[in-house]
Amino acid sequence: MSLPALLLRNIRPSIPRILPKQMRSVTKPAARVATQAKDIWTIVNEAAAAATASGNTIINLGQGFFGYNPPQFILNAAKEALDRVDCNQYSPTQGRLRLRQALSDAYSPFFGRKLDPATEIVITTGANEGMLSAFMGFIEEGDEVIVMEPFFDQYISNIQMAGGKVVYVPLHPPAKGDTEVCSSADWTLDLAELERAITERTRMVVINTPHNPIGKVFSKEELTRIGELCVKHNILILSDEVYDRLFYVPFTRIATLSPEIRDLTITVGSAGKNFYCTGWRVGWLIGRPELIKYASAAHTRICYSSVSPLQEAVAIGFEQADKEGFWESSKHEMKGKMDRLNEVWDELGLPFTNPEGGYFVLVNMSKVKMPEDYQFPPHVSSRPRDFQLSWFLIKEIGVAAIPPTEFYTKANEKEAENYLRFAVCKDDDVLEAAKVKLRKLKDYM
Amino acid sequence: MSLPALLLRNIRPSIPRILPKQMRSVTKPAARVATQAKDIWTIVNEAAAAATASGNTIINLGQGFFGYNPPQFILNAAKEALDRVDCNQYSPTQGRLRLRQALSDAYSPFFGRKLDPATEIVITTGANEGMLSAFMGFIEEGDEVIVMEPFFDQYISNIQMAGGKVVYVPLHPPAKGDTEVCSSADWTLDLAELERAITERTRMVVINTPHNPIGKVFSKEELTRIGELCVKHNILILSDEVYDRLFYVPFTRIATLSPEIRDLTITVGSAGKNFYCTGWRVGWLIGRPELIKYASAAHTRICYSSVSPLQEAVAIGFEQADKEGFWESSKHEMKGKMDRLNEVWDELGLPFTNPEGGYFVLVNMSKVKMPEDYQFPPHVSSRPRDFQLSWFLIKEIGVAAIPPTEFYTKANEKEAENYLRFAVCKDDDVLEAAKVKLRKLKDYM
Repeated sequence: MSLPALLLRNIRPSIPRILPKQMRSVTKPAARVATQAKDIWTIVNEAAAAATASGNTIINLGQGFFGYNPPQFILNAAKEALDRVDCNQYSPTQGRLRLRQALSDAYSPFFGRKLDPATEIVITTGANEGMLSAFMGFIEEGDEVIVMEPFFDQYISNIQMAGGKVVYVPLHPPAKGDTEVCSSADWTLDLAELERAITERTRMVVINTPHNPIGKVFSKEELTRIGELCVKHNILILSDEVYDRLFYVPFTRIATLSPEIRDLTITVGSAGKNFYCTGWRVGWLIGRPELIKYASAAHTRICYSSVSPLQEAVAIGFEQADKEGFWESSKHEMKGKMDRLNEVWDELGLPFTNPEGGYFVLVNMSKVKMPEDYQFPPHVSSRPRDFQLSWFLIKEIGVAAIPPTEFYTKANEKEAENYLRFAVCKDDDVLEAAKVKLRKLKDYM
Repeated sequence: MSLPALLLRNIRPSIPRILPKQMRSVTKPAARVATQAKDIWTIVNEAAAAATASGNTIINLGQGFFGYNPPQFILNAAKEALDRVDCNQYSPTQGRLRLRQALSDAYSPFFGRKLDPATEIVITTGANEGMLSAFMGFIEEGDEVIVMEPFFDQYISNIQMAGGKVVYVPLHPPAKGDTEVCSSADWTLDLAELERAITERTRMVVINTPHNPIGKVFSKEELTRIGELCVKHNILILSDEVYDRLFYVPFTRIATLSPEIRDLTITVGSAGKNFYCTGWRVGWLIGRPELIKYASAAHTRICYSSVSPLQEAVAIGFEQADKEGFWESSKHEMKGKMDRLNEVWDELGLPFTNPEGGYFVLVNMSKVKMPEDYQFPPHVSSRPRDFQLSWFLIKEIGVAAIPPTEFYTKANEKEAENYLRFAVCKDDDVLEAAKVKLRKLKDYM
């Protein structure tokens, strides 16, 4: 409030005023939270819980949380941090220096330059709040942000919270996806379509590689062309690379492609995905000081600081991971899980998208015939076919998976209505038990 | 994006367009983070660090972090939670059920009604993100939120982030504060002034009791009159009660005063303040389902979920605290620290505001005479006298404290320019060492 406004307020007459009855109820929410659709995770988890309650055993391959613990060396580090007074108190708003230093040491080689822990890294409350901080730091009311479909659902509310308008560009599924096993590389971005989506108000493009839910690892050529478009049109890049340790083909970071592209890019990382601890809420942003400065300012205004003892544990995790051979074994293990589950699709003759990275697999269920008179509840029958498939699999097969049209706009949801997303970051015996159940799909083909 | 808009976009001509050069630089921040003044914590911490580097020992009684660890039973609980797979993965967005249940058990008696853990409690990433969630859930662009001066600084950016306009009402210092020891009860709210600040756009009033930095515990009568004003004008109440276990006079919760007031009130709590773990980032909101529903929706959009293993530890902390006699000993211990430090002001003849709650004490330094030719750096000399006092104490006495005019608007900062805020949540030997240093103030009186 300006000084004159304050003074003015202070000389308001003190006669009690009878205010007109407010037009809105006092408990009316702000518009940004008013359309409160149940999120897909809750829908699927609740359906699975209800089925379990009625006596079925449901194996939940829906949400991407891990079915096992973080590695022991990082758990030990967390326990030791809990004994230290400074680790239990506020971390610096930008994050504990030891973690920023560890990230600089770990990531400088990947970025091909020395990352300054003082100015080029900020620790956030999970990757999620990191992305919100980036949007809050740079998006003004009415700015446009381009997001590819399918998208990670939190992008949308986070962009809108900053006043941004989401503009969608689809990743097109492989033409033969209904009949053949394809690679996630066969899901393609039409560059001309991307450029047509750019307007004078375009402020940022969001990239996700390795991609959730497709498993696509964008090629160096694709990223170069996207990056050059952004340089040409002066557009920031938010590169969500939370699955950056799980790639099964060569992985490129867009920030490394040219100095011009680097200067426009904020890269997002996640300890939750790296170290199997999605509940720890430790993530980070990496970028040039001009970008990190304002994302960090937004983060300070959102959460003040992030969880201190677990930051310390993650720092120690990065310091020790190479010595433990963790990254290689982690990647190897996850690829093993992926191949383990995918055997069952081959057995069943169900085509799937073989992922180049991450821990999700999209399976094409167009061959699955659900009984024509099958009864779905209204919140399922009103949605595309993948919601019905998801419901049917929970109830009749005993396996929960995510319907990917949740990650599409209405206009493009047709593209994915035959797919379901399965998470493989579960114990091997859980995956084997899931396969036993999934073989029952044979009866519906 | 609507379906027609999407279709329209897709038939845009594909000829490359040369965009006009954008009027703003690509790294220009959003307005909400553009005015990036250094926060006071960083200013004081840096000044203390600089003084330490030049060979002085500085005792930091500035920021309100604890100088000691959380109680052992809660540390043990955290370590055990780290061994459990589910505790390391995403918590439900609304918070772990065990914690909501433990809070319901602990707080229902205080609220005089059974709090429903399913609908009346949401766990947030510290009290800070809880308050942001409340603002984001209910404040629309241009809505006014009334805040009392001095204020906790994060209120302001959090309200503004939601598009709200802050309207300030001062808590007036005791008339004899320059010469006599007073009670924090002598800092008074002028109810007529509060009512004059209410307009048709007033959406929320923020209350803080026990108050930071004053230590004021609002009386039942004060709260009743504030609550009745809010009922009369249909205004929500955000009651920041993060110091709710540290009161040295009877403590009233505004939500308990009448059903009408209860229905307007969101109460904020903090495990960080309750259990000496400000770095854990576990807080909560309590209120009627119509309020919690939307604050919870905002929280989901901001952080998705909060730190899972430390939520479990806090749940166990609440389950065991009574049995451990923790709350009584915690209050007793803090009051002891308060009295221990305050002895030195009596020795020096410096009047202070004797707090009714919390762990901060405001000391009136109008009697302290700094040398007239003393050299302050520009970012200190340009601020009110308390900033110079703070600098002087760091450099010449070796004790860091917070200048409270940081928590005032320009219009009212005169009210507090002779005060400094000291935090007493430190080990007793640290407080004793601080007293030795503070006795040197005698030379400047």
